[in-house]
Amino acid sequence: MEPWLCGVDFGGSKLAVGLVSGDGRLKDKIVVYDHIGRTEQQVVAYTAEIIWTLLRQNHLDISQVEGIGVGFAGHVSHSEGIIITTSNMHGFKTFALRDALQERIPLRVSVDNDANAQAYAEFTYGAGRGHNDMIFMTVSTGVGGGIIINRKLYRGVAGTAGEFGHMIINPGLPVQCGCGNYGCLMASASGLMLPKVVEHYLAQGISTHLESSQLATIDGHLLKAGAAAGDELCMRVIDVYARAIGVGVYNLFQIFNPPIIILGGGLMNLGEAFFAQIKAVYRSLLKDMEYVSMEIVRSELGEDAGVIGAAALILEATS
Amino acid sequence: MEPWLCGVDFGGSKLAVGLVSGDGRLKDKIVVYDHIGRTEQQVVAYTAEIIWTLLRQNHLDISQVEGIGVGFAGHVSHSEGIIITTSNMHGFKTFALRDALQERIPLRVSVDNDANAQAYAEFTYGAGRGHNDMIFMTVSTGVGGGIIINRKLYRGVAGTAGEFGHMIINPGLPVQCGCGNYGCLMASASGLMLPKVVEHYLAQGISTHLESSQLATIDGHLLKAGAAAGDELCMRVIDVYARAIGVGVYNLFQIFNPPIIILGGGLMNLGEAFFAQIKAVYRSLLKDMEYVSMEIVRSELGEDAGVIGAAALILEATS
Repeated sequence: MEPWLCGVDFGGSKLAVGLVSGDGRLKDKIVVYDHIGRTEQQVVAYTAEIIWTLLRQNHLDISQVEGIGVGFAGHVSHSEGIIITTSNMHGFKTFALRDALQERIPLRVSVDNDANAQAYAEFTYGAGRGHNDMIFMTVSTGVGGGIIINRKLYRGVAGTAGEFGHMIINPGLPVQCGCGNYGCLMASASGLMLPKVVEHYLAQGISTHLESSQLATIDGHLLKAGAAAGDELCMRVIDVYARAIGVGVYNLFQIFNPPIIILGGGLMNLGEAFFAQIKAVYRSLLKDMEYVSMEIVRSELGEDAGVIGAAALILEATS
Repeated sequence: MEPWLCGVDFGGSKLAVGLVSGDGRLKDKIVVYDHIGRTEQQVVAYTAEIIWTLLRQNHLDISQVEGIGVGFAGHVSHSEGIIITTSNMHGFKTFALRDALQERIPLRVSVDNDANAQAYAEFTYGAGRGHNDMIFMTVSTGVGGGIIINRKLYRGVAGTAGEFGHMIINPGLPVQCGCGNYGCLMASASGLMLPKVVEHYLAQGISTHLESSQLATIDGHLLKAGAAAGDELCMRVIDVYARAIGVGVYNLFQIFNPPIIILGGGLMNLGEAFFAQIKAVYRSLLKDMEYVSMEIVRSELGEDAGVIGAAALILEATS
């Protein structure tokens, strides 16, 4: 029987660890939310403990596991196995996560940015199967991406390639992103910036039925429900988000001319009309410049993409 | 002795054909401007005639030439050897240039977009030597680019990757690009759009000492001379161009995280202050997001980059 893969999806709110088969099926997973506020070494020890628990409860020996892939929300040097920086968690700046985990579990460990891991999972098991080149963009708390060229992840010289959210697309929008810039894609279309974008359109006089307490913590679910109920503010924000993502997709087309762009992340659940509008914005900018039709599709792997993607990194390392 | 390479730089105003050594030295070239207004087959016959003349006047036999590389100003399908489309010349839409030229000269022919050819020349002989990955952007009549990943040109599925000029960076600028869109890099920083950009700032009341006849046909030389003489309009346009190119460079950094970006094309001769400002704009957007310092340099191959780049395509084909 094929060996199992272990995938660790390391986010700012959630730590998910899964056992994944070589063909991408999730066998079992453990999800915790109490990894926050611990030191790096404590988090690593906690993660190792969860992995041992997963193995035990699935009656697996460590020799049946090929390796541990870690997808981390931040800038990662894959080649060195080091977290460069993260804005989602305390600590971890220049932390050697690969070696720290390997000291506790004697397996091959591969660490990468979470969007790269998801991109590789879509390429291996999801919507990107069969393509040599592929672009993945995730629209979630932040906006990130992964680039597959010639069947490999392209990571750039420091490991930070694919940061599509930082691309400047509209410096006229007076919303300052967490990075300090104006007009980047992330400022116009991310979960993180939603309260600020809402505030901007409220100040412009756009009406809403939502309470101010709801607006301060607005997320994709509330936005979607509001728009479905005809709320003007929610509809406007969804429109602005779709336009920004459509421009991002267009820019990625002009830069990569890829056969397919896959869109993932929680905000891609804003509905069919939202996805249709993203594609309409792309088409309106495209005019007659597309000679081989580019597919624009949604992630196939859904909410387990993070864990499955992290596990898939082990396949990349050995391919 | 190493065989010679033949390079054809096919532009909308100039047709240049050169004999290039395997190590990138230009031995001889013929430049003509009267290829415009002819049919495609006439242009091909004319090009072949020029190649035969070059060989004769350099006492070379065709057996001493490895192949003919053609850099063409337009969208090109390299794999099929077909011009997809061009906005710089009459005709050539879906024209099979590779086969047409090969029918007249029995040599290997490689056809590509002119910016790809220049990128490959910088990689092989110029500022990109020694790098595995490299981004080239040309700011000239239009804005284009070439992507080297893992020592190869990355062309995309139709051959149109690297169209950095079509990237939307500022939809607020009310200048419509030739492609029909607003806010693309080419609309903010290209030779083609210079008269329209000038018109926009004149309408805003920016003063100038230039005559209206000069403004209607303004080019980089006039712009540079005007700015040197303290002309407000020329200084403003150079400032806007530097900002747009700086944003473009920043976007390419976030997308590719390359070790080096090389800037070429005629407008890169606007002066040291212009180049310094491009880099300053990049740094101001970058903040603390660069972990391995990225080089931003100018093309080393100068005005013969087109011919040398076209010739270098033959080396790529055989590498």
